[in-house]
Amino acid sequence: MEDDCLNMSPLGLEAQDKLGTVCIFGTGDFGRSLGLRLLQAGYLVVYGSRNPENSSLLPKGAKVLSHKEAAEYSQVIFLAVHREHYDFLSDISNQVEGKVLVDISNNLKKNQYSESNAEYLSKLMPNANVVKGFNTVSAWALQSGNLDGSRQVSVCGNDYKSKRIVMEIAQHLGLIALDYGSLRAANELESYPLQLFPLWRLPLCIATCLTAAFFCYCVIRDVVYAYATEGKDVSFRILISLANQVFPVVSLIMLALCYLPGVIAAFLQLYNGTKYKRFPEWLDKWMLCRKQLGLVALGFAFLHVLYSLIIPVRYYVRHKQNSYLAKQIKNNETIIFQKFYAWRNDSYLSAGILGFGFYLLLGITSLPSVSNAVNWREFRFVQSKLGYVTLLLCTLHTFLYGWDMFCHAHNYRWFLPPTYMFSLIVPCIVLILKVILVIPCVDTAVMRIRQGFERHAEKTPYAKKASIRGTLAL
Amino acid sequence: MEDDCLNMSPLGLEAQDKLGTVCIFGTGDFGRSLGLRLLQAGYLVVYGSRNPENSSLLPKGAKVLSHKEAAEYSQVIFLAVHREHYDFLSDISNQVEGKVLVDISNNLKKNQYSESNAEYLSKLMPNANVVKGFNTVSAWALQSGNLDGSRQVSVCGNDYKSKRIVMEIAQHLGLIALDYGSLRAANELESYPLQLFPLWRLPLCIATCLTAAFFCYCVIRDVVYAYATEGKDVSFRILISLANQVFPVVSLIMLALCYLPGVIAAFLQLYNGTKYKRFPEWLDKWMLCRKQLGLVALGFAFLHVLYSLIIPVRYYVRHKQNSYLAKQIKNNETIIFQKFYAWRNDSYLSAGILGFGFYLLLGITSLPSVSNAVNWREFRFVQSKLGYVTLLLCTLHTFLYGWDMFCHAHNYRWFLPPTYMFSLIVPCIVLILKVILVIPCVDTAVMRIRQGFERHAEKTPYAKKASIRGTLAL
Amino acid sequence: MEDDCLNMSPLGLEAQDKLGTVCIFGTGDFGRSLGLRLLQAGYLVVYGSRNPENSSLLPKGAKVLSHKEAAEYSQVIFLAVHREHYDFLSDISNQVEGKVLVDISNNLKKNQYSESNAEYLSKLMPNANVVKGFNTVSAWALQSGNLDGSRQVSVCGNDYKSKRIVMEIAQHLGLIALDYGSLRAANELESYPLQLFPLWRLPLCIATCLTAAFFCYCVIRDVVYAYATEGKDVSFRILISLANQVFPVVSLIMLALCYLPGVIAAFLQLYNGTKYKRFPEWLDKWMLCRKQLGLVALGFAFLHVLYSLIIPVRYYVRHKQNSYLAKQIKNNETIIFQKFYAWRNDSYLSAGILGFGFYLLLGITSLPSVSNAVNWREFRFVQSKLGYVTLLLCTLHTFLYGWDMFCHAHNYRWFLPPTYMFSLIVPCIVLILKVILVIPCVDTAVMRIRQGFERHAEKTPYAKKASIRGTLAL
Repeated sequence: MEDDCLNMSPLGLEAQDKLGTVCIFGTGDFGRSLGLRLLQAGYLVVYGSRNPENSSLLPKGAKVLSHKEAAEYSQVIFLAVHREHYDFLSDISNQVEGKVLVDISNNLKKNQYSESNAEYLSKLMPNANVVKGFNTVSAWALQSGNLDGSRQVSVCGNDYKSKRIVMEIAQHLGLIALDYGSLRAANELESYPLQLFPLWRLPLCIATCLTAAFFCYCVIRDVVYAYATEGKDVSFRILISLANQVFPVVSLIMLALCYLPGVIAAFLQLYNGTKYKRFPEWLDKWMLCRKQLGLVALGFAFLHVLYSLIIPVRYYVRHKQNSYLAKQIKNNETIIFQKFYAWRNDSYLSAGILGFGFYLLLGITSLPSVSNAVNWREFRFVQSKLGYVTLLLCTLHTFLYGWDMFCHAHNYRWFLPPTYMFSLIVPCIVLILKVILVIPCVDTAVMRIRQGFERHAEKTPYAKKASIRGTLAL
Repeated sequence: MEDDCLNMSPLGLEAQDKLGTVCIFGTGDFGRSLGLRLLQAGYLVVYGSRNPENSSLLPKGAKVLSHKEAAEYSQVIFLAVHREHYDFLSDISNQVEGKVLVDISNNLKKNQYSESNAEYLSKLMPNANVVKGFNTVSAWALQSGNLDGSRQVSVCGNDYKSKRIVMEIAQHLGLIALDYGSLRAANELESYPLQLFPLWRLPLCIATCLTAAFFCYCVIRDVVYAYATEGKDVSFRILISLANQVFPVVSLIMLALCYLPGVIAAFLQLYNGTKYKRFPEWLDKWMLCRKQLGLVALGFAFLHVLYSLIIPVRYYVRHKQNSYLAKQIKNNETIIFQKFYAWRNDSYLSAGILGFGFYLLLGITSLPSVSNAVNWREFRFVQSKLGYVTLLLCTLHTFLYGWDMFCHAHNYRWFLPPTYMFSLIVPCIVLILKVILVIPCVDTAVMRIRQGFERHAEKTPYAKKASIRGTLAL
Repeated sequence: MEDDCLNMSPLGLEAQDKLGTVCIFGTGDFGRSLGLRLLQAGYLVVYGSRNPENSSLLPKGAKVLSHKEAAEYSQVIFLAVHREHYDFLSDISNQVEGKVLVDISNNLKKNQYSESNAEYLSKLMPNANVVKGFNTVSAWALQSGNLDGSRQVSVCGNDYKSKRIVMEIAQHLGLIALDYGSLRAANELESYPLQLFPLWRLPLCIATCLTAAFFCYCVIRDVVYAYATEGKDVSFRILISLANQVFPVVSLIMLALCYLPGVIAAFLQLYNGTKYKRFPEWLDKWMLCRKQLGLVALGFAFLHVLYSLIIPVRYYVRHKQNSYLAKQIKNNETIIFQKFYAWRNDSYLSAGILGFGFYLLLGITSLPSVSNAVNWREFRFVQSKLGYVTLLLCTLHTFLYGWDMFCHAHNYRWFLPPTYMFSLIVPCIVLILKVILVIPCVDTAVMRIRQGFERHAEKTPYAKKASIRGTLAL
């Protein structure tokens, strides 16, 4: 926001001799943007290029030399070159000896090479101190100064001092540098810019499958059934009526799936008698994407709310109500008010509204900036206590909506039960298991295990108490 | 997200000899997680344990020795031990002399001890340089690398160099270290992980009391009255009709309460003739939780919106409308359209919608990441100017809703006025006081005081002007 | 939150001799708050004042001396004095020689002086090392410890070491220091606290103009027309019916305007045959405020949703429906159900709901903390792919809403077409241009240009590949 004039601020000549010279190999987009930024911060910049004459687009104030000459000028060399061109470096291995080589390259595909670019570079140039970094910042962000989204620069490398130098340069460019450990982490840093919502895949996949399955079920039970038995075409119900049956079902199931792994983990710990045994891998994976499961569920709940609120505006609904009323008036029937219906209707609506309110609260607290501002205890309180309240309210909402629907034979068209009944299975399992875990004696047992107690081992006195801090939120 | 493979990345052996050795006392959960993370960052780790033989669960690559031996190895000792076990340290006071002792302990309850753990440790080991820190990070976060929620490590201590060393270690672990000053701040750091929404208590308490009070009032005025005078049971109205009377009332009162302290403060400053006199403590407390007051009010407003939008779906409402229409048709009455009603109805609805829109905007700008991105002037503009517009629109919404309801005797059942009238008292007071403050001459007086002018004192020339920057948002 | 007890924590005497002394010139609000905070962090504080006797409000533990004496005590001098009073410094130029002078001043207006305060100071005191910083932190934030909103301190200056010293002090106060380069950036730092949503101006201006224009158009087409031709007064429709015609139109146009510059840029690049030619300035400006355009559009969409949901509650609507029904019943007409209408109605409603859902998703991902947590590829995916899906759904929603309205002559009152038709122009242009860009051969050409290919130039081998990383999201 405020930075965009940085582009125009001319080079502070006074500061140059104090910050030293930085060398950049590669005159591509990133090389140029980085150079410009370095010049603005007060560094001297020297570019290394194959054909130094042909480089009119470089920022003003920077020198362009051959690779060999450029390398002589600086202790720090940024390598803005693709991995395929690293071979030219072998010619200047003498010039690079003992210097800091910053590998900022990214690949086009994940797992393109067996070994990270930085480690490959480190093998090519064993004399140089290779540091991986800056690859998560975009050239555009550097250029425009619009660093809102990417102020963090992760750096890794084997030589501590070299890493320090690179981190300091990052800080001088107005970036926040984070140390990521040894060069082994380079692989991770290189794969970061290539990933596309890895933790969202499973939840979105579950959501898609559930939605598709329930949609088909509803179409068969409603549309096909009506056509087959009565010859009526009610396909116009698909877009909203059926969608509004499917969305809440998927939402409730996914909300329950978000709390199920925690309960399973507690029972596993009870069964194992220790918390130090690893969970099976599927459970670990499941636990890691609970937040995403919950947020996808919230999205479906939101759609359900909108679809429900739009009901009275729909042509179909208005027509049905009008016809019904017209028929009653014509037949001179009196419209009897049944208090019981009013109670039931109002109570399922309020349970739904309150449940959705808590749901939204959970969603808001899972925003990074909000969850950063609360401590561990507060986070657990919201995500665990309020989470169960939400689940309870939403389950109640569904129960009250269904009421005695399940005991009327005519609701089992072709022996298929109403859709809402499916949505109750997982939440009820989760709630029942949770109730068992909350029983005082079970609760104490779980607590002791979480505090480090091991049924089959002699206890280590410190371990027992010091580990309270680290219990997992369930 | 990206960090979870860190667990598996083996120890970078090359880096070890450069980063040095760190000693950890305590082999509990936190000790182990910290050790693993340190090893990953390239440190050598030595554990001090009472029974060094019995420690199979420690991360690979770490040595385990007795406390005495371990302490010899490193300049920095992390103490992952509970306060009750600090006494063992007296045996190794010689080994610890001049070293950095990092107290990372937390207590189970607030104010469990009169003195913070770190200060107690500092008295026990006067030879060592005690630093408090890392206690706000959870073992689980360290272990999983999932540091999204807790990247900040607050550090305090009396020795500057020791603090510096600990902050550097934190930075190497990929954490953001913040200096919290001398060891006197340890108490604060230790109580942080134990607190549970301290600033939300007062607003939530006010909200609960107001809701309970108005609910009772409404039940008496609506349900009990109907039963007592006409023998009708309208208890089904409790869940939604009454709730939807109570929620907006509470919301509007709390929104006004959120702006009242600012206005009071301005009048107090006018009365005192200076801004350098401390406000009474209750006002300070009130001012501090204005944001929370506003957000709770927003929650109630949100519920009011949902409850209002759900109205046409309700059985009770549909029945009432149908009966009314059926009666009119039977009696052959013509349904006359009254433009005045249409205007009134539409205007109170639009005031409500616009008010809610601005309300939401206020809520969004109070998200930490959004309020971080705006400067002081922008923040004041939103929270003050837009805040008053919101309050004005919501008050207008209530006025237009009520219209002339207050002058019809039949609305005073048992002499009890309609609920909405109560909600107008505080907002009107706030708005009237604000209007007084906006009058040019008063406004100038307040401005002068806020700029450092003191009615009864000789003015200090710098103070007057330099303090403009620091005026409080009202 | 956690910091508010800091105020009360007494000065850690033990730490004083280690952190050294800091001098503050100026005893105004900011000077006092800064002094208090420095004392709490363990520094010794000396104030320089014109009349040292008259300073009862200074924090306890700080000395007050004359400017000359105070300057002797410390290597670092904070200048909490307004620019107009800088002249007193000429008397103590000897004492200040070689020391760090931190200019923390702000101006009252933007561009009040031709040269930034810090550069002016630097000319006045050529012997001192002037550093600009701390001016973006408010005195109130420093005082209350409530640093949530302003933990970042931007620092700039020509002398590297001096800057380093000031950044370290900031870190000791619990702030996050960012290096902004040489003193040339001071102008920018000084104008930052004075700006008021600069990037929001253009979008808000466009929104206001569009709203006003369409409102007038609607009033003429609906209200004036009805009055002129039939003598009916339908002015009551202005508040909600007309608003709900204007808001969606403005929202859709602005959403399209948010994607138009990207498409134009792509065609410009195709035309130029290179990406290294600068875009015209208006396009650059337009591109920079795309996020704000989108968010304003989302606000209008939100209002449209609320106005639409409120429809069945409106008196006017209920009256119309009741009259219609009553008439039909009286005339004994049968109410025929038209499946086609049901389909059309439901499909435009679902397109709208889904479009709004994606819209909200876009809005949420543009929150700073969310966009910080995703990488460049993910951000592009959401803002570009999902953005076009949103635009498509919203355009579809409008098309389905309009259906064949445009081919009925009676909709062209006074030859004025229905409002919704205007909203379709820009989105259709954007979508058509986008479809052209997505055609394989065009797509390849754009991709090649974005990867650094230049039609009229010899290619530089590195440039071509290294620049992939930096392509602009469109």
